Amino acid sequence: MRIARFSHNDVPQYAFVQTDENDGKDYLVALDGYPLGGAQVRPTGERHALDEDGVRLLAPIIPSKIYGLAKNYEAHARFMNDAGHSDIAHAPEEMMIFMKPSTAVIGPDDPIVIPPASHDMNFEPEVAVVIGRIARNVPVDKAMDYVLGYTCVNDVTLRDLQALDPMWTRAKGFDTSCPLGPWIQTELDWRDAKISFTLNGQDVPEASGTTADLIHGIPEQIATISSFATLLPGDVILTGTPYASGTLRPGDEAVVHVEGIGDLRNVVVGGR
Amino acid sequence: MRIARFSHNDVPQYAFVQTDENDGKDYLVALDGYPLGGAQVRPTGERHALDEDGVRLLAPIIPSKIYGLAKNYEAHARFMNDAGHSDIAHAPEEMMIFMKPSTAVIGPDDPIVIPPASHDMNFEPEVAVVIGRIARNVPVDKAMDYVLGYTCVNDVTLRDLQALDPMWTRAKGFDTSCPLGPWIQTELDWRDAKISFTLNGQDVPEASGTTADLIHGIPEQIATISSFATLLPGDVILTGTPYASGTLRPGDEAVVHVEGIGDLRNVVVGGR
Repeated sequence: MRIARFSHNDVPQYAFVQTDENDGKDYLVALDGYPLGGAQVRPTGERHALDEDGVRLLAPIIPSKIYGLAKNYEAHARFMNDAGHSDIAHAPEEMMIFMKPSTAVIGPDDPIVIPPASHDMNFEPEVAVVIGRIARNVPVDKAMDYVLGYTCVNDVTLRDLQALDPMWTRAKGFDTSCPLGPWIQTELDWRDAKISFTLNGQDVPEASGTTADLIHGIPEQIATISSFATLLPGDVILTGTPYASGTLRPGDEAVVHVEGIGDLRNVVVGGR
Repeated sequence: MRIARFSHNDVPQYAFVQTDENDGKDYLVALDGYPLGGAQVRPTGERHALDEDGVRLLAPIIPSKIYGLAKNYEAHARFMNDAGHSDIAHAPEEMMIFMKPSTAVIGPDDPIVIPPASHDMNFEPEVAVVIGRIARNVPVDKAMDYVLGYTCVNDVTLRDLQALDPMWTRAKGFDTSCPLGPWIQTELDWRDAKISFTLNGQDVPEASGTTADLIHGIPEQIATISSFATLLPGDVILTGTPYASGTLRPGDEAVVHVEGIGDLRNVVVGGR
């Protein structure tokens, strides 16, 4: 099942995304409520094509909090070292967990805005996990019961400010640093979800990978985080970027693709 | 003006706190709405004594996000170095900004729970600023226009995990790590707000101080944070702890006092 949030003539609503058997296209089947936290929702009877005038996909969720995993793929830890961004050649043994605020979230096609203080903004394509139930002290073998679904994320990072600041509050938490979308996919082979990235229409093979190579897997992430902080329905975990990141410049079109989820497209604009 | 959030027979409500001229005691004057973000509210006509049966103060706000300043007093930076928690003898020149999630917030008299992973939980008494209006790229000389008021905070920190983890996500963001209260005071001499702390009824003079000694003042904090992240009504900034912190053990009673605001009291319980 795919759960989307969209606006129609500026009114935000939830929808299921369904493929029409006749034309093979995806449609938004509008819902009368908020399909999270166990709420009952019904179709309103309205249906919209994704490209209908006045219809716009929004970030599928505004989380109460967002956790992210840093250096959670060996290839990315090696890349960061080779690129001179880190003086540690290997991923740390312990999970390295950071936070982004809800104000960082943007949706599909929203602009990523470079803050004036930065001259090196990087893309990081990833799988994001969306929590479905209140999770506190969840054991690893029960962790996946607390997942609602998955979406694409671009964990946009200011590489220069990340090196300058001991905490990554600015580097990973600035407005527009958390594009999420295009929707929440509830069925995904999360053990081997394939991530790829295109920049201005060109595939960037060194940014691609699969969650099969995660150092700390998704159940371990949920268990560890929920051992110190209660996860609420709609909270999001950014599971880590698989390999290389790279610079985003004004005018760039960044597309995060996760097989089985879809495309998250954003365009970069200069600071303002 | 003092704005409190309380529950009466488990129903949460907002109130103004007013002193009765006859008995000199504080009363909760219940309101019919949410007195933030410019909303109009009216007294419901109900009034409760603070010690009335079934009446309980709650955290005065559940922020969308909480920022905190680390090492924002020279005396605290020196203390951290002397205590072996830091190898830097002086406060950093740049602001050191961390985040706490909304799930860390507890209210007056709520228990602070030591996570099982930690063996060195510390108190940090501080003044917290509550934002009243959407703040984005606010200049220093206009910053105070965006403040609703002030409350007391105990920036509870796991000193051992803070040393272990490169990010302070666990050390400062665990459940119950952000006691706030007892209410929001809208009038405060924020340039010289006097902070003190008592542990089990004993004054801890080396934990006390005044915001007059802040390295980065409150207007500068709002300007800097709002230069990269939009602050929303109800968001909170922890301005820094003035001097020494110290260990909290199960059974301890921790009281943060800010002159002109009041007392924030919490009791510590062991991990569970």
